[in-house]
Amino acid sequence: MQLGMIGLGRMGANIIRRIMRDGHTAVAYDTNPDTVQQLVDDGAVGANSLEEFVQKLEKPRVAWVMIPAGITDKVVEQLSELMDEGDIIINGGNSNYREDYDRAVALKENQGIEYLDVGTSGGVWGLERGYCLMIGGDEDAFAHCEPLFASIAPGLGDIERTPGRDGDPAPEEQGYLHCGPAGSGHFVKMVHNGIEYGMMAAYAEGLNVLHKANAGKTEKTHSAEETPLDQPQYFQYDLDIAKVTEVWRRGSVIASWLLDLTAGALNGNPNLDGTAGRVSDSGEGRWTIKAGIDEGVPTPVLAAALFARFSSRGEAVYADKLLSAMRKAFGGHVELPTGE
Amino acid sequence: MQLGMIGLGRMGANIIRRIMRDGHTAVAYDTNPDTVQQLVDDGAVGANSLEEFVQKLEKPRVAWVMIPAGITDKVVEQLSELMDEGDIIINGGNSNYREDYDRAVALKENQGIEYLDVGTSGGVWGLERGYCLMIGGDEDAFAHCEPLFASIAPGLGDIERTPGRDGDPAPEEQGYLHCGPAGSGHFVKMVHNGIEYGMMAAYAEGLNVLHKANAGKTEKTHSAEETPLDQPQYFQYDLDIAKVTEVWRRGSVIASWLLDLTAGALNGNPNLDGTAGRVSDSGEGRWTIKAGIDEGVPTPVLAAALFARFSSRGEAVYADKLLSAMRKAFGGHVELPTGE
Amino acid sequence: MQLGMIGLGRMGANIIRRIMRDGHTAVAYDTNPDTVQQLVDDGAVGANSLEEFVQKLEKPRVAWVMIPAGITDKVVEQLSELMDEGDIIINGGNSNYREDYDRAVALKENQGIEYLDVGTSGGVWGLERGYCLMIGGDEDAFAHCEPLFASIAPGLGDIERTPGRDGDPAPEEQGYLHCGPAGSGHFVKMVHNGIEYGMMAAYAEGLNVLHKANAGKTEKTHSAEETPLDQPQYFQYDLDIAKVTEVWRRGSVIASWLLDLTAGALNGNPNLDGTAGRVSDSGEGRWTIKAGIDEGVPTPVLAAALFARFSSRGEAVYADKLLSAMRKAFGGHVELPTGE
Amino acid sequence: MQLGMIGLGRMGANIIRRIMRDGHTAVAYDTNPDTVQQLVDDGAVGANSLEEFVQKLEKPRVAWVMIPAGITDKVVEQLSELMDEGDIIINGGNSNYREDYDRAVALKENQGIEYLDVGTSGGVWGLERGYCLMIGGDEDAFAHCEPLFASIAPGLGDIERTPGRDGDPAPEEQGYLHCGPAGSGHFVKMVHNGIEYGMMAAYAEGLNVLHKANAGKTEKTHSAEETPLDQPQYFQYDLDIAKVTEVWRRGSVIASWLLDLTAGALNGNPNLDGTAGRVSDSGEGRWTIKAGIDEGVPTPVLAAALFARFSSRGEAVYADKLLSAMRKAFGGHVELPTGE
Repeated sequence: MQLGMIGLGRMGANIIRRIMRDGHTAVAYDTNPDTVQQLVDDGAVGANSLEEFVQKLEKPRVAWVMIPAGITDKVVEQLSELMDEGDIIINGGNSNYREDYDRAVALKENQGIEYLDVGTSGGVWGLERGYCLMIGGDEDAFAHCEPLFASIAPGLGDIERTPGRDGDPAPEEQGYLHCGPAGSGHFVKMVHNGIEYGMMAAYAEGLNVLHKANAGKTEKTHSAEETPLDQPQYFQYDLDIAKVTEVWRRGSVIASWLLDLTAGALNGNPNLDGTAGRVSDSGEGRWTIKAGIDEGVPTPVLAAALFARFSSRGEAVYADKLLSAMRKAFGGHVELPTGE
Repeated sequence: MQLGMIGLGRMGANIIRRIMRDGHTAVAYDTNPDTVQQLVDDGAVGANSLEEFVQKLEKPRVAWVMIPAGITDKVVEQLSELMDEGDIIINGGNSNYREDYDRAVALKENQGIEYLDVGTSGGVWGLERGYCLMIGGDEDAFAHCEPLFASIAPGLGDIERTPGRDGDPAPEEQGYLHCGPAGSGHFVKMVHNGIEYGMMAAYAEGLNVLHKANAGKTEKTHSAEETPLDQPQYFQYDLDIAKVTEVWRRGSVIASWLLDLTAGALNGNPNLDGTAGRVSDSGEGRWTIKAGIDEGVPTPVLAAALFARFSSRGEAVYADKLLSAMRKAFGGHVELPTGE
Repeated sequence: MQLGMIGLGRMGANIIRRIMRDGHTAVAYDTNPDTVQQLVDDGAVGANSLEEFVQKLEKPRVAWVMIPAGITDKVVEQLSELMDEGDIIINGGNSNYREDYDRAVALKENQGIEYLDVGTSGGVWGLERGYCLMIGGDEDAFAHCEPLFASIAPGLGDIERTPGRDGDPAPEEQGYLHCGPAGSGHFVKMVHNGIEYGMMAAYAEGLNVLHKANAGKTEKTHSAEETPLDQPQYFQYDLDIAKVTEVWRRGSVIASWLLDLTAGALNGNPNLDGTAGRVSDSGEGRWTIKAGIDEGVPTPVLAAALFARFSSRGEAVYADKLLSAMRKAFGGHVELPTGE
Repeated sequence: MQLGMIGLGRMGANIIRRIMRDGHTAVAYDTNPDTVQQLVDDGAVGANSLEEFVQKLEKPRVAWVMIPAGITDKVVEQLSELMDEGDIIINGGNSNYREDYDRAVALKENQGIEYLDVGTSGGVWGLERGYCLMIGGDEDAFAHCEPLFASIAPGLGDIERTPGRDGDPAPEEQGYLHCGPAGSGHFVKMVHNGIEYGMMAAYAEGLNVLHKANAGKTEKTHSAEETPLDQPQYFQYDLDIAKVTEVWRRGSVIASWLLDLTAGALNGNPNLDGTAGRVSDSGEGRWTIKAGIDEGVPTPVLAAALFARFSSRGEAVYADKLLSAMRKAFGGHVELPTGE
């Protein structure tokens, strides 16, 4: 079947390439004509305006929007004005699920347009691996688009089936899932990213403990301002973190795709040159914590992971200065020039 | 070559079975004669006493101890008294690496016995998957035992090699690694388990947020003592957690072996009947946090994961009572009978 | 001057009593006529309807609303319809500051009514101690009401002045502060409560560590499922927590009003009988974390304090069950019947 | 009665000055003769060697050691060799309570010398305010020294008595407490400091949220790498943090001595010039978390406070670099040059 794609960044473009491999057709639009041309070269139909894009789609139209969250609202509005009742808009970007919910309700009520929110995981690897799709919205609209989702998702692949599952593989075994009504796709994707933050931090903290396993080799002068290392004989290890992450890939309990990537990043670059350690966050982690707070669900690990990112960007400095100021006020403690 | 095994629990017995598949031979000893007999049936040489066990080993002897941490000290002492200079003791149990360090130093100095500490991951799945081995101790002793480690470890298998690695696979690519001097094997295993706690908690917290995604369906009465759910329209989702974990297995960023197992545990038992949620911890998580504290390395995520286990066992109740008592004291707040 | 009060709960009633002591007059209204009568007995003018309440106020009217957050919106709307341009509505309840901001903007634009949001701290002790007031809104409206605020606030009292401050005491030294434009009063009060959660949790956790300082007295059987206490000789203390909190009240770094109250709660009730430890939260802690997340400011301590309250109410159980299910899946671990 | 003091730093010297005010006498020793001379000028008997110090004390001798934890062991050993059975050594420094326990047991068994561990809180303010004393060790030795403790402690002062307490004030109401056997004094002091970390962090985090309450005033460019501020209209406040801390001193729930000091530190130095925000920690916070872990008691707030100090000293940077490396590996994310 046919899919229209608005936004030909890495993910948008690769989704088109994946479905065309399976015999589907695509109409591609981007504000940058060069990226449109690249997709045309790969076999897609190109469009140079939103109007042309809509014209070239067959009814009921299926238009996938894959653009930064900040401009999604405007583009969906413009798009919907050109579309007709029964058409389907798919939002595959990293939107807050609440906006999806609001948009879906409004589009349905006002124009009879269906709206699916599709959380899309897979990063830069999706062209090869396929994308994991978490889909929210109307059941019929989902069913109409299911052939596309099946093509974009990884499929059963050579991953062992979960014990107890047999027969025809369910959609979730093929890598796509209709999670529920409007917003639920991005809700599940939001939590996916929240978990991702937590897992990443678990690895990073643990590897940091390994990294400092030679702390006992550094001689420290004693002062009332710093804590001497207790029993330095137990901290004399110069561990090869790249090798450790590699050995964990096989047979350990903490094997994962994130670990595979970490082993790859450390191999040949053990000191992680080229990174300063200012870690961005793109919103889903924040929304996950907020959703947990609204529900009254504790998320201490996920929140700690998020806060570590904030701190990595210097956002704790004012608080830290207050701590030093208090220590000076009650104890006369003066900051050490070089830390601990 | 030959390996002696003391302790024929699931892991000890399966390690013997794995090496015998590769043509190695084994002497098996346990205080329970039935388990010895089972291994004899499988092809091992049995021993009914520690003395007999030592006698049946060829020099230099290689004796693997695989018993609860609490009795390791006593057994290693008894064993070492029966052994000779140049023999090798391997501790594969979950010991605190500090005890390994102390033991290794003492055995070497006093009796000339080598001691290797081997962190062993793989749980109940090791017979099939192989065990991931993290090894600390003398380089020559490691080299002597390497054929055994190679046989116990998973090997290269069909896991894709890390980009940049080619040629003959390094030991760490085969699932075993000589991490460094005495204690380093269990140090790395300790941190492995610390990370495991963090990853498990990341999944558990995230899935809990999904689980309560229908919080808006419950009507709540308003009172000054409880916070009404903000915007209940956004919390109307009845999500199928088993399906969500299944879909994440393919193509998502958070795919992992732990996720595979979680999907398996939820499939057919979505409410996790049969578990009360009192989560044990077996020491390594505690030691990881303590090691980080000694090093001055922050581990907020790993610590939060550990503390959640403590709380699951009721260990926060006194603190919680204090909070309620304070609230009553300053604000006249009275506890609600059924929580929030 | 004159103050109108809607909502004669403990705080509303006591605020009236405090201002009348200073010679101000008050009009009191509540849906419960009995509470109105009590205030009339104390010297206030009573009102039996909102209409009567508004009629009895002199222009420009000053009407303080002190009711649960859930019904504030409706009452403010009804009230504003009866009021005139230049009148002033004060919201002293625990509202989300965002609602205050929205209300202030709307009331000003549509009806020319001023709106002040006043965070009020002091709990059940305010009648004696005075209330700490954090005020947001229009500067002129604040100035008009300042005599009332000065009367409600504690005043300079016998608390030592901060070094460097002399001359006439500033408003903040008297216990009230115009923080900034609309919403800022409740923003500051929100953070005040967030800090309160953190401080309370700091005390509660520390006292729990003291409470279990006799952990070494309990004999434990060894098993692979539980961690034996390391060096039990160091955990043989039966500490008297009530006495400890009392001794800290004098001369220690952690002396505080919360500590005073804690010492009082423990004195005569050392086991905190009568509390189950299901700790409520009334919204401000949640909003503080969310505000920090919006700002990108890390609040690990405040968030951990909030999450402990959620957990105290059983909201972590599903996550805990998942942890036990995972442990069983990879390691064959079975839950211990009575915890650790 | 008479007290000997070894170590005439700020605290040791001020303790002597406080007891002499009450008519007690003192022998003062320090390796620095100038500080000895200062105390002699103030009325103490000076000693220029440990031998002379011991000679000048009347039996049973009471010798208070007030020196950095790192050298306490050596000095106590030298001192004990010069003392006789029945003499009393008091350790008032910030030792790990485990060392006190070990020392007390050894001194008693080997030499019949009593040993009291005294946790001393009060910082640079103790001369005026008095010191809060948490005392562990033998009951008779405590009783012998009680007149000194009563003199060093603040006394009942003008702090209101806890409701329910009347009659002669108990020792804890005067600011000193015999907590229990050897080590318990420093155990309680250790937890005191752990709580101190938590309270300080609660204030610091909350004030940081206030500090960034103007986050909505900064325009941000949109990109997939950063999260735009949700609803910037709610973050337009330029709050005067010094005034906010001042207003909280009167009538609020979070009034405390630490808040008094914070208000003082901010008054006249609102940007905390002169502090870089590299926050030291002197051991007790670490030991508190470790003790909680040994006991199985969750301390998420206290641990988060400790970890924030580690992070303030750059100890999270390796972990942060790993996070950035992972993000690049799975998502092609490149670090932003200036943070979020």
